[in-house]
Amino acid sequence: MIILVLNCGSSSIKYQLTDMTDNNSVVLAKGLVERIGITDGILTHKPSGKEPYKVVTDIPDHTVGINMLMEALLSPKHGVIKDVHEIKAVGHRVAHGGENFKESVLIDNDVKKEIEKCGELAPLHNPAHLKGIFSVEKILPGIPQTAVFDTSFHQTMPDFAYMYAIPYEYYEKYRIRKYGFHGTSHKFVATKACKILDKNIDDMKIITCHLGNGASITAIDKGASVDTSMGFTPVDGLIMGTRTGEIDPGVLLYLADKEGLSVSGVNNLINKKSGVAGISQLSSDMRDLETASIEGNPLAILALRMYSYKVKKFIGAYAAAMNGLDLLIFTGGVGENDFNMRKMICKDMEYMGIRIDEEVNHGIKGKDLVFSSADSKVEVMVVTTDEEYVIASDTKSIVEKLS
Amino acid sequence: MIILVLNCGSSSIKYQLTDMTDNNSVVLAKGLVERIGITDGILTHKPSGKEPYKVVTDIPDHTVGINMLMEALLSPKHGVIKDVHEIKAVGHRVAHGGENFKESVLIDNDVKKEIEKCGELAPLHNPAHLKGIFSVEKILPGIPQTAVFDTSFHQTMPDFAYMYAIPYEYYEKYRIRKYGFHGTSHKFVATKACKILDKNIDDMKIITCHLGNGASITAIDKGASVDTSMGFTPVDGLIMGTRTGEIDPGVLLYLADKEGLSVSGVNNLINKKSGVAGISQLSSDMRDLETASIEGNPLAILALRMYSYKVKKFIGAYAAAMNGLDLLIFTGGVGENDFNMRKMICKDMEYMGIRIDEEVNHGIKGKDLVFSSADSKVEVMVVTTDEEYVIASDTKSIVEKLS
Repeated sequence: MIILVLNCGSSSIKYQLTDMTDNNSVVLAKGLVERIGITDGILTHKPSGKEPYKVVTDIPDHTVGINMLMEALLSPKHGVIKDVHEIKAVGHRVAHGGENFKESVLIDNDVKKEIEKCGELAPLHNPAHLKGIFSVEKILPGIPQTAVFDTSFHQTMPDFAYMYAIPYEYYEKYRIRKYGFHGTSHKFVATKACKILDKNIDDMKIITCHLGNGASITAIDKGASVDTSMGFTPVDGLIMGTRTGEIDPGVLLYLADKEGLSVSGVNNLINKKSGVAGISQLSSDMRDLETASIEGNPLAILALRMYSYKVKKFIGAYAAAMNGLDLLIFTGGVGENDFNMRKMICKDMEYMGIRIDEEVNHGIKGKDLVFSSADSKVEVMVVTTDEEYVIASDTKSIVEKLS
Repeated sequence: MIILVLNCGSSSIKYQLTDMTDNNSVVLAKGLVERIGITDGILTHKPSGKEPYKVVTDIPDHTVGINMLMEALLSPKHGVIKDVHEIKAVGHRVAHGGENFKESVLIDNDVKKEIEKCGELAPLHNPAHLKGIFSVEKILPGIPQTAVFDTSFHQTMPDFAYMYAIPYEYYEKYRIRKYGFHGTSHKFVATKACKILDKNIDDMKIITCHLGNGASITAIDKGASVDTSMGFTPVDGLIMGTRTGEIDPGVLLYLADKEGLSVSGVNNLINKKSGVAGISQLSSDMRDLETASIEGNPLAILALRMYSYKVKKFIGAYAAAMNGLDLLIFTGGVGENDFNMRKMICKDMEYMGIRIDEEVNHGIKGKDLVFSSADSKVEVMVVTTDEEYVIASDTKSIVEKLS
């Protein structure tokens, strides 16, 4: 079953065409439409086994963008399918599913309304996803579309983990609570790791560290998310490339007062100017910081230590939340590739049964791997994530139930 | 050596007269001056072994207030000393010592200037402490005065623990970093517990939970604070009576935007309307919440669970920070008296070697006690705190070195 996976942003569309037939998945093509609604739009199309292909032209809206990527997929020269009807379903990544979507769903009118309603909580994302959904309705009328939410995996959290210590009426009025994000990734790597280890996820206490430019960490007990570090917004929790993570709110009020910052000024500060980029005054990219740290740059060293220390403390906190830990997983750009960061995080954690094999860990980038030592009580792994696979897989399951 | 301990607030003065002679300490009197600068000021004087005594009269400033408490201490009827010269020193509790005060000090002109400078970081507290210091200079000219800082014990934290993930220039410009508070209490109970257990603090990994209306938790490795939950301001860290603790900053920006709150409006929200009071919509007092929870009030139950869960996660995080834990201490109004809360926090922590004896814990209020079970790897204790003792004791040490 060939499935088109779409991740529609406000001015971009990430896509992947996957063949999910035969309990296997083959990526046929992937690509990116950029600068929608701005001049000089760009389509970058990467068909498997063929030369990549790039078009620069004005792309006024999402419908034009999706038409362009469909043309690329069908093109005799750069395409990977011959007939549009080969595509059996479209799966959308949806950032926010609020409290009502606890799993992936087939999109109907009620679902569209609910995604729109959740747009209040994700104003940069959900409206763009809806644009994508409406465009597909025009271009591929009648095709089943599904929504796979970043938040739904975390809907199993208990109230004492997801509520904030602010007046309760704000939960009633605005649904302010922890939702969590990266759910698709956390679920995927936990499931995949258990398969690799031949363990039953229902017997496992797992912590998944999704460390990328955005970063979150999740406690998974018996297969269910019981706590996660991103919250009401994706700025909560860990220190990230340019985001603060959780913080003394007094700091921001002090800064707002002293620097005369508005709400949007503070928003910009905590989302775009903070994190390791803000501390290091250098870069949000861990590779730059690792290089600078080797050269002795004190602020790069500080940024790496702060980043790793925060992850370490979250691992301790989530082990306490679950009364133990069996499996610790690293994924995402940093988690999969930055072996030095993995080492810093796992160092000096013997008290809770974490021992790593530094030689096995060293140099490993972007492949599935157990790097705990033989005497480690906790298994420690790198597991590569694949959110597009989860979206295609969930979509396949939903569509199969339709017939 | 008789020492007067003062804790001067902007409109109140808490005082205690202690005799520190003979390696022992005897409280001679304590009391409170209230409503300074407002009409109908109140002096409440409690001499040991005599009837308490109360005066209601206008108290225009700190000098008048300190004169009143001196008269009460010297009064033939309510007093406890006969001559003002029996008082050998005055020890002041000072909220904020910034980065320069790593221990208690004798107050001289430089110290006064530095306390004034730190007033930028504690605008409600340090200016009031200075008023107290200047008043004592007038009333007891030439008497040695000392400053004992709430922050100084935490000055041993490493930079990666005390820095926030905001642009580094705000540390340079405003000294925005984690300072921590309750230092006097954390240090005192850790030291006292080691004495009770006959352990050398230099061999110990200790977590101290100071749980009162304000609450903070500290990781103490080899006698030094290595991390603490209160930060730049006392709103950071744990959930408190009316304070949020650390939080997704996005939540506050969302609320500021939706509710049209100014900086001072948000400040009021996070300091006075949040915490367990905000969640429960009932009370900031744990005793009220325990009662309501027994009666089945769902928001009281939620508030207690959130409070205990947050402490539990911090214990996990700080064990990770120190690679283990030998001793867990509860102190402060809630920590010393709320045995149900202690049980909730310590439950299901066997993975890190915490096992409590529920029978020993049950009903215990306000006394020093080991309540871990015999097979617990971690010792778990209640230790009553006494900040006035530390101030008097530090003052005695400083004054003895003068002669």
